[in-house]
Amino acid sequence: MKAENDDVARVDAADLQAFMHDVLRRCDVDTPSAEAVSRALLTASSMGVDSHGLRLLPHYVNAVRGGRITARPSMRFTQPLPAIGYLDADDGFGHLAGYTAMDHACSMADEVGMGAVAVGHSSHFGAAGCYALAAAERGLIGMTVCNSDPFVRLHDGKAPFHGTNPIAFSAPVEGQPPYLLDMASSSIPWNRVQQYGAIGRALPPDVAADATGKVTCDPAEVASLLPLGGADFGFKGAGLAGMVEVLSSTLTGMQNGFRLLPMGGPDMSTPRGVGHFFLAMRPDAFSDRETYQASMRTYLDDLRSQPALDGTEVMAPGDREWRCQARRDAQGIPLDAANLAAYERLAEELGLTPLAVRRS
Amino acid sequence: MKAENDDVARVDAADLQAFMHDVLRRCDVDTPSAEAVSRALLTASSMGVDSHGLRLLPHYVNAVRGGRITARPSMRFTQPLPAIGYLDADDGFGHLAGYTAMDHACSMADEVGMGAVAVGHSSHFGAAGCYALAAAERGLIGMTVCNSDPFVRLHDGKAPFHGTNPIAFSAPVEGQPPYLLDMASSSIPWNRVQQYGAIGRALPPDVAADATGKVTCDPAEVASLLPLGGADFGFKGAGLAGMVEVLSSTLTGMQNGFRLLPMGGPDMSTPRGVGHFFLAMRPDAFSDRETYQASMRTYLDDLRSQPALDGTEVMAPGDREWRCQARRDAQGIPLDAANLAAYERLAEELGLTPLAVRRS
Repeated sequence: MKAENDDVARVDAADLQAFMHDVLRRCDVDTPSAEAVSRALLTASSMGVDSHGLRLLPHYVNAVRGGRITARPSMRFTQPLPAIGYLDADDGFGHLAGYTAMDHACSMADEVGMGAVAVGHSSHFGAAGCYALAAAERGLIGMTVCNSDPFVRLHDGKAPFHGTNPIAFSAPVEGQPPYLLDMASSSIPWNRVQQYGAIGRALPPDVAADATGKVTCDPAEVASLLPLGGADFGFKGAGLAGMVEVLSSTLTGMQNGFRLLPMGGPDMSTPRGVGHFFLAMRPDAFSDRETYQASMRTYLDDLRSQPALDGTEVMAPGDREWRCQARRDAQGIPLDAANLAAYERLAEELGLTPLAVRRS
Repeated sequence: MKAENDDVARVDAADLQAFMHDVLRRCDVDTPSAEAVSRALLTASSMGVDSHGLRLLPHYVNAVRGGRITARPSMRFTQPLPAIGYLDADDGFGHLAGYTAMDHACSMADEVGMGAVAVGHSSHFGAAGCYALAAAERGLIGMTVCNSDPFVRLHDGKAPFHGTNPIAFSAPVEGQPPYLLDMASSSIPWNRVQQYGAIGRALPPDVAADATGKVTCDPAEVASLLPLGGADFGFKGAGLAGMVEVLSSTLTGMQNGFRLLPMGGPDMSTPRGVGHFFLAMRPDAFSDRETYQASMRTYLDDLRSQPALDGTEVMAPGDREWRCQARRDAQGIPLDAANLAAYERLAEELGLTPLAVRRS
């Protein structure tokens, strides 16, 4: 939610991706992992999902140098049944695990109509939407969920229990970018609390709680986030987070989110054992391609032509992101002062040519 | 949300189910349909989901007598791929379509690990949780979604667009009732507005809007519900409703919710062409049964032992419902004055022995 006028420089997408790739390669990360991480971070940054874009690179460098993440993993895929796969990610990058798992799920969908892959022994994979999007790019419906370490209290709970456990869902639309939902099961992400705290701004009502579980708008008091639905209807957000948890961790026996080591450290050497879940499905297999495509177009036309509140616009999930991507493809991807400094430090530490940016 | 002290009588589950079955048979409904409808309504009423329980029987009688619902449907199932099925429900009862579709999805899951069935030409199916529960009773993870006629405005929209589009998800737990989430993608259901209006009570903040799309707490002013997440974060609830819509209507070319005839009439003769979607998955196929079961138990133990706000209790989805079911199994299922009168009218109109109730 940071304003783009906080940004001090812009970079072309290709330059950014190449730089991220080089940084990871200098940390002894193998080529498939470096490609997957830079692809996912670039996708998020292009779409405006800045919380899960280029800003995460320094974190991943720490994690792979600390030994938490395996730089050259031997991921092992097994397929016990035609529609069921399991990927052991060997504590490698979650991004490689994610693209690999969704690729297998899509191949199973091509074969039998649908495929699900559960991933174990993985790590943070960035934005869940990247992998749902990968399915849509193959003409398939995609779904991705992932647990995370505890930030969100339960409905009527006092303390953090679930992660912000995202749900991503995509559906392809011919001649248009896909329907793409990528949402946390809390109202706001944790870094929103930190951003608001830094500028002394009050949080919206009903999104966070203090150490006693009581709702607060003061970022300094926040000890947990509320599940989507807030104090009255948070049983819905918590129930969705639980669905994410069941799919992410129980199928492969990974730790549930409450037991996960914190993403932020300080321990950067112990693998976290994150689980993910990926599903792909052929939308044309129930009826036929034309029926599905015509129905999608009608639905989205109906949706986008709905009357909007004054000064607003009604959008389908993804519309805002595709618009941002078009703008950033043309104008470059913005960096704020903190990210610019972090990227300069990375170049210096690793002996790389600094990222070619255009300062504003 | 009605208090149980509004209730004027109680009835045993078996007597209720038999009466509902007899009522439908008198309306020329075939035995499989009558069994499915009475099973689903009894399940909802036993679990305390009163909005989707016995109170719906008079509505279904009107719909089947009016010709909207086919009393003796010829439902046709096809399975184009090993994990994909399509059920044409021939405008019959959604409850029969739901149990039939989930049964096929479960059989596909037994075979290839996962199965999805999309249903077309169906009608209202009651509570989505009934069919997710049917999967859990077979040891499978189940998911059910369904669109409905418009009650909920879009994020930043002015007028009703999506239905309350529910998401139901279940996961089996050995030695315990299943994890069972059954939630609308709005904060409250439409009949809550009516109930609050009837007793002159203000709605909670941020759940409903007036005819201009502005948030209101006055039931008399309400023209639409807000999506889950309210005025600020309703893009999440609207995105979930859209996911439900895509799965329910586009796969089989049914009308999207915005175009559906209203459930409440006045037209009770035209079939509505409702779509549903059912998914079943083997939780033991990714790793093994013991890994899954041990992880589920640990997760639920961790969840249920979380500290709660004073005067409250932390529960997993379904816990409240299983507790209600145990109470109602022992004490009978309550009827309020309106339902008791409606059931007496049905018995009289159809020449049936009145339901044997215990008046309080």
